[in-house]
Formats: sequence, C-alpha cells, structure tokens
Amino acid sequence: MYDSLKGFRDVYPAEMAAYREVIDTVEATARRYGFRDITTPALEATAMYVDKSGEEIVEELYSFEDKGGRNVALTPELTPTVARMVVAKQQELSKPIKWISTRPFWRYEQVQQGRFREFYQTNIDIFGSSDPSADAEVLAVAADMLTELGLTADDFDFRVSHRDILSGLLASFDADVDMQEAIRTVDKREKIDREEYVSQLTSAGLSVSQAEEFDALLQTGSDALDELVEQSGSEQVAGAVANLQAVLAAAEDFGVREYCTLSLTTARGLDYYTGVVFECFDSTGDVSRAVFGGGRYDDLIEGFGGEPTPAVGFAPGVMNSTLPLLLQRAGVWPDEELSTDYYVLQVGGTRPVAARIARDLRGRGNVVETDVSDRSFGAQMGYADSINAETVVIVGEQDLENDEITVKDMVSGDQTTAPVDSFPGEHDRPTYDDFA
Amino acid sequence: MYDSLKGFRDVYPAEMAAYREVIDTVEATARRYGFRDITTPALEATAMYVDKSGEEIVEELYSFEDKGGRNVALTPELTPTVARMVVAKQQELSKPIKWISTRPFWRYEQVQQGRFREFYQTNIDIFGSSDPSADAEVLAVAADMLTELGLTADDFDFRVSHRDILSGLLASFDADVDMQEAIRTVDKREKIDREEYVSQLTSAGLSVSQAEEFDALLQTGSDALDELVEQSGSEQVAGAVANLQAVLAAAEDFGVREYCTLSLTTARGLDYYTGVVFECFDSTGDVSRAVFGGGRYDDLIEGFGGEPTPAVGFAPGVMNSTLPLLLQRAGVWPDEELSTDYYVLQVGGTRPVAARIARDLRGRGNVVETDVSDRSFGAQMGYADSINAETVVIVGEQDLENDEITVKDMVSGDQTTAPVDSFPGEHDRPTYDDFA
Repeated sequence: MYDSLKGFRDVYPAEMAAYREVIDTVEATARRYGFRDITTPALEATAMYVDKSGEEIVEELYSFEDKGGRNVALTPELTPTVARMVVAKQQELSKPIKWISTRPFWRYEQVQQGRFREFYQTNIDIFGSSDPSADAEVLAVAADMLTELGLTADDFDFRVSHRDILSGLLASFDADVDMQEAIRTVDKREKIDREEYVSQLTSAGLSVSQAEEFDALLQTGSDALDELVEQSGSEQVAGAVANLQAVLAAAEDFGVREYCTLSLTTARGLDYYTGVVFECFDSTGDVSRAVFGGGRYDDLIEGFGGEPTPAVGFAPGVMNSTLPLLLQRAGVWPDEELSTDYYVLQVGGTRPVAARIARDLRGRGNVVETDVSDRSFGAQMGYADSINAETVVIVGEQDLENDEITVKDMVSGDQTTAPVDSFPGEHDRPTYDDFA
Repeated sequence: MYDSLKGFRDVYPAEMAAYREVIDTVEATARRYGFRDITTPALEATAMYVDKSGEEIVEELYSFEDKGGRNVALTPELTPTVARMVVAKQQELSKPIKWISTRPFWRYEQVQQGRFREFYQTNIDIFGSSDPSADAEVLAVAADMLTELGLTADDFDFRVSHRDILSGLLASFDADVDMQEAIRTVDKREKIDREEYVSQLTSAGLSVSQAEEFDALLQTGSDALDELVEQSGSEQVAGAVANLQAVLAAAEDFGVREYCTLSLTTARGLDYYTGVVFECFDSTGDVSRAVFGGGRYDDLIEGFGGEPTPAVGFAPGVMNSTLPLLLQRAGVWPDEELSTDYYVLQVGGTRPVAARIARDLRGRGNVVETDVSDRSFGAQMGYADSINAETVVIVGEQDLENDEITVKDMVSGDQTTAPVDSFPGEHDRPTYDDFA
C-alpha cells in the first residue's frame, strides 16, 4: 500500500464537490469582468526564480536537474510565469491584458493548518494599465467573489496600503535604510514580537527611536493621510497617498469601498510589489493569517526584459489553502456531498428501455446514473440513496408490460407511474409531481 | 528574457478559449453520467511507478529527490494514483466508484506533433464493477463526448479488443510464451515493420510459423468470433469472447455500438490491462496515432494492497495531446477567439454610472469589461473591438444630461439611445434591438 506524500492531499468527491463550487464561483466572477483563461507550465527554469524572486522562495523550491541537464523547478507561484508570457507576446497582445488561471503550486515548507506543499491558487492579473481604476477593479473582483461565496462585509476586510508610502516614510528619516529589509520587517510585524520587530528595523538602518516613530506613522488611518503627507514632507509619500486615495475612490464607484480599510502596516512579503498592496483578513480574527493578498508590480515585466508594463493582481488560494478556512469559519462552506438528479433503476431484462430513458434525461442536461453492476432492486436503491439521487425512475418488467415506469421521489418516498413513451416527454427535469 | 522549457506550452487566451470549450464539454458529458470530480497530487513516490508500471514509463519519469530525501516523481499518468486512493478508502466508498479529473501529466520524451512533455488528460474510471455494462458505459461516455464535440461516426472509430483473447490465443500454441512481451509487440504492430514484428514475437517465444498464424488469427472480425473460439479450443478465449460480446451488446443498448469495431490487434501498451481494451482512431487516418484509449484493469487495486476490485476507464488527452488534432482534422475545433458580451465605455466623469451599469450587467451573468486605463473614446472602441464585444454601452456626459446612454451593436454598427434608469432594466441581456 502506498501513501500520498507529506503536504500533498487526495481530494475525494464529497469534499471536491465543495471545492468545485468555490472554484467555479471564483472563476465565474472573474470571467464576468473579462478576465481570460490561460494555461501555464508546472515546470520553469530555476534561474527565473533565483534571479527575480526573494531568496525566501528559492529555499522553498522543489527544484532538480531534468534528464536533459536543465535546472528546473516546480512553480511556487504564477507571477514570474505570466511576466515571462507577457514579455514573449508583448506586441501582439491588446492592452489591458486580463488573465485568470486556477492551478496547483508547490513549495517545500512546513505543513500546518491551511498550509500544504501542494496548494491551488486562482491568479487574476491586469497588465498594461497604471490607472487607479485597474487597482480598484482587482479589489472589486476580489470582493465580488467573496460575496458571491456568501461572505458579507462583517466577515472579511481588505487591508490596503501602498509600498511607496512605506518607502517614502523610510526615506524621510535621516538614515541609510535597506528598503527591502525594512519592508519585509513590516510584513512580518504581526508574526514577531515587538522587540524582534524593532531590532529588525534597526538592523535595516533605522535608529530605535526612528523605528518607533516609523511604526507610529504606520498607524495612520485613512482620515489622517493628508496630515501624514504634510508631516513627512516627502513627495514620494504625497504621490503614493494621492494614488491610494484615487484607488479607494474608484473602489467606491465600483461598489466595494466598504470592504477596504487603510492599513499601512500591510506590506506584502514579496519584493516585486511597487504600489498599492492589499491583504484579505478574517474580520473575526479566527483565521489569523492573511487569507490572500495582491497588489501592483509595475517593474517586473521590464525586469524580465520587456517594455515597461504596469501590472496589478491577486491570487486567492482556493484549495489546500486559507480561503476555505475563512469560508468554513463564516459558515458558508458548501455542503460536502454528492448530488444526483436521477437514478434509473432496471430490473430484469429492461436495460434497453432504461438506457433510452437515461440517455434522454442526460440529453436534457441532467446527472443520471444507472446500474453498471447487475445488482438487485434493493442494492440499486441503496446505491441511489448513497449518491443522493433526487428521483429514482424504476424500469421494471411488470410495469413495462403496461407500458409504464415508476417515478419515485427520494425525499418524500412518494411514487407514481408514468407512461414509458412520454417519459421524459415534454419535461426537461421530470419529477414525481409531474405525474402524480 | 526567459523561455518556457522544451515540451512545455504557454497557452494564451484565444487558444485557451477553444481548449476551455473542449474540456468543459468532455467533463460535462462525464458528469452527466455521474462521474465525480476528484483532485490528485502532482507528485508521488517514485517507488509507486517503479514497482507497478512498465519500465518504459519509468524511464520517462521526471523524478528527483526532494529536500526531505524522498524519491518523488511528477505523475506520468493517473491510474496508479487513483488505485492508491481507492485502496486508502476502500471501506467507506460506495461502489461503483465513478471518478473524473482533468489535469496535467509529465513525461520526459521526444517532443513531436501532438506530443509534449506536459500534457492534459481527463481521466474517467469506474471501480467496483466487473459487469460488461461498466465497460460499455465507458465506451458510451467516450462516444458521447466526441459527438458532443461535433464528431460523427464517420470521424472516429473505437477499435475494441480483449486482453484475454490475446493471452488465450498465445497460450494455445505449443510454446513457452512471455505474455507481456508478446502483447507489447502486438501493441507496437502498426509502428514497426513486419520483419521486426515477427522477430519480436519469436523473441517472446513463438516460432516464426506460430507468429504468422497468431497474427492471422488477430485479423478475425466480429462475425467470426465463434469460429475463433472453436479453432483455439481455449476456455480462456471462449470466456473472453463471451465477455467482449456482452460488452458490445450493452454498447448497443447504450446507443454507441456503431462507433465500435472489433480489432484484435489492439492491445494497449500498459501491462496492467486485463480485459476489454479499446483505442480511438481517426477514421480517415490523417491522425495516425491512437487518439486515446482505455480498458479494464481488474488486478491493479489488489496489486496495490487493496481488496480485489475490478476497474475500467479511459483517458482522452484534452490539451497538448492528440484529441485536438482529431478535432482540427474534422473541422470541429472551436474558434480560437475571445468573446465578450458588453464593453461599457465611459467618457468624461461618468465612471459612477458606467460602473453601476457594468455591475448590473455582470449580476445578470454577462461578461462585461470597462475602461481601467483612462483612455479616449477611440482607444476604448478599438479595445472593445479587439475583445469581440457584441454590444458597447456608451456612457457619455452629454447623453447623461438627458438621462440617456447609447447602445451600439458591434456587428451592424447600429446604435440607439436608451434611458439610463431603465438600463438594463428588465433585460438580462439587453441589445440594440431592445431599444431601437
């Protein structure tokens, strides 16, 4: 007997029915905004990650040498791949480029609640627009998919920030600051204790008092942003605040401002972010980690050898990830059970008729099972029950002699006969009630 | 600039729109038969393949040692994984177990037309029934998905055979035959020349004249099966022929007999097949390789440490594979182009109204794009055209002063105004005609 690998999950049909509903909802929401499906490789050259991503990710790669001597890695995230794809067809693609895909990613990391070594993300990105409405559309898609999943404004909160506010504030101190290190420290703020936090900020170049002052500035709320600009005297901060306010104004027009809270302590860990960033949190705090996040990364395409191309996107983890934890906490996780419209039961030599009926019902879009095991009436009824069949159509020899079949409602247990020749007849989804 | 790896493809939206339609059709057909979605890992212990599959596959594995010292492999096919999953929950799962999944697989092999190192298959399997109707249901699902895709009986042919007919015939010779080697040779019959074919059969234990006689027996048509039984004097052949005939009779009841041709030279390469096997071929021969195949593998679950559990299934390669070649040859490959229901065009300060309209239209299930780039009227019209928008809703400042918007049909170029307050109003999918 073999086992699955640690951090890898087998998802069986009942559980998958719930995941299917979640993924379908997430994808359908984005497609209604005009995001277009792409499909991307599971393997890429390791160099792509070594050159461009933070070292943290590289350490977590499933990387190896293939039989042709190439250093390759299982993709730990989609962004470098889509950047590569944009560069490859930059001239042909009309802008904005709006892409969506759902697929697994792999990271060799500690397995814990909601974190696996194989996990599924839906990546949603816009390339080719620097306008604040692109950032806001990303927030709108994110909010819409969560509300479509049954969540409300009481359940989740988008903590929105801007990388250049952080950078501008850091630059306004009389200190030689390592921006990447300082911003990564802000990203870890909730996960490490205060002493460690201040210590890491000082190791990034701030004095202890500057670190404290910097952290106090990060507590600024959306009503005090103008004061922050004035206080910092930084043009970078002024520009970033104006951009962030424009994004929030567009989010207002798009009907999703209520889900957004200014949170300057939100930084996002990855180095490639350049503008507005956001993270989705469980409002109740029960799910303690960020549910997902995203933001603007205007420099990546150019860094990959392309024309300068602004970009913004996000990626909810839809399976083996954190979003399902939030849906479960909020009580909107879909039922983990099979659903079946019809079981067509055959007894004796009735297979030709049963098969014709099953075929007709399927042709009308219904989910229909029939006997493929040559089983007894009782065994077939038991199976029909196990797959939650709504209606059982019984095709028995005796009924057929009268040109009839029996239609049984599996919830009430009521049953009635129907003429075999007019079943399903006019009905796309015939039930007991249609013939009772 | 980075490149994708050899044998790995980036699929962009226009091409993906066609693949999406194919995959959706294939999956929807199987789901209507009650096949249930599962999700499975991309990595498995290499031992699972080394122990259980033919050596040919093992040589083609993307295998490596992970950071925890495990020997792991990218899954080259699904069957061992689903066998492992059936064994793990054998007691809980009600039978028949009917599973479907679409996902990538990886093999390090020569890249050629329709063959890549990363390819997508939809795997469709039934576990727990040895009844011929299970084999026939698999044939029915396969045929239905092809006809749903627009193919007809003139386009494709299922070449159906039975492993035990081959084994029984081989055993009926006075020779010490290596069954696996002989059956693998039959599988290669079309790909190697006659001399090589006979030579490999003799190396499997037959004499040259026995090899010739065996091959002549393989030409038996469905009308001469009873003679074949008599001629061989083999009980194994008799049982296999009866089983194959029962499968074809059930296929008749299921309405798909017309797609099936008896073809005893069809063997399937993999060692785990035990009963009926089939391969789908292009009737015109333009696509020269098998489009896909499947069959019965009753011993695999027990071989994986489970209770004896019969199994039958198949796996069309839906992307970066052979099925698309057949669909293209037959002229039923879906259009490779984007489709968009609405582009909502905004000019001046009309974003709040445009956003409200876009939101309403999306709420009714439409694909709707709006400006996220702050572009001119002309640039927006050009973009709407590039995404094949059917209707453009123009929200202009001047129109809005009259409480109107403009609805433009992008095919005819006709446009008319509509009252902003009743748009989309009662209409789920408002068009120019509704307001002209």
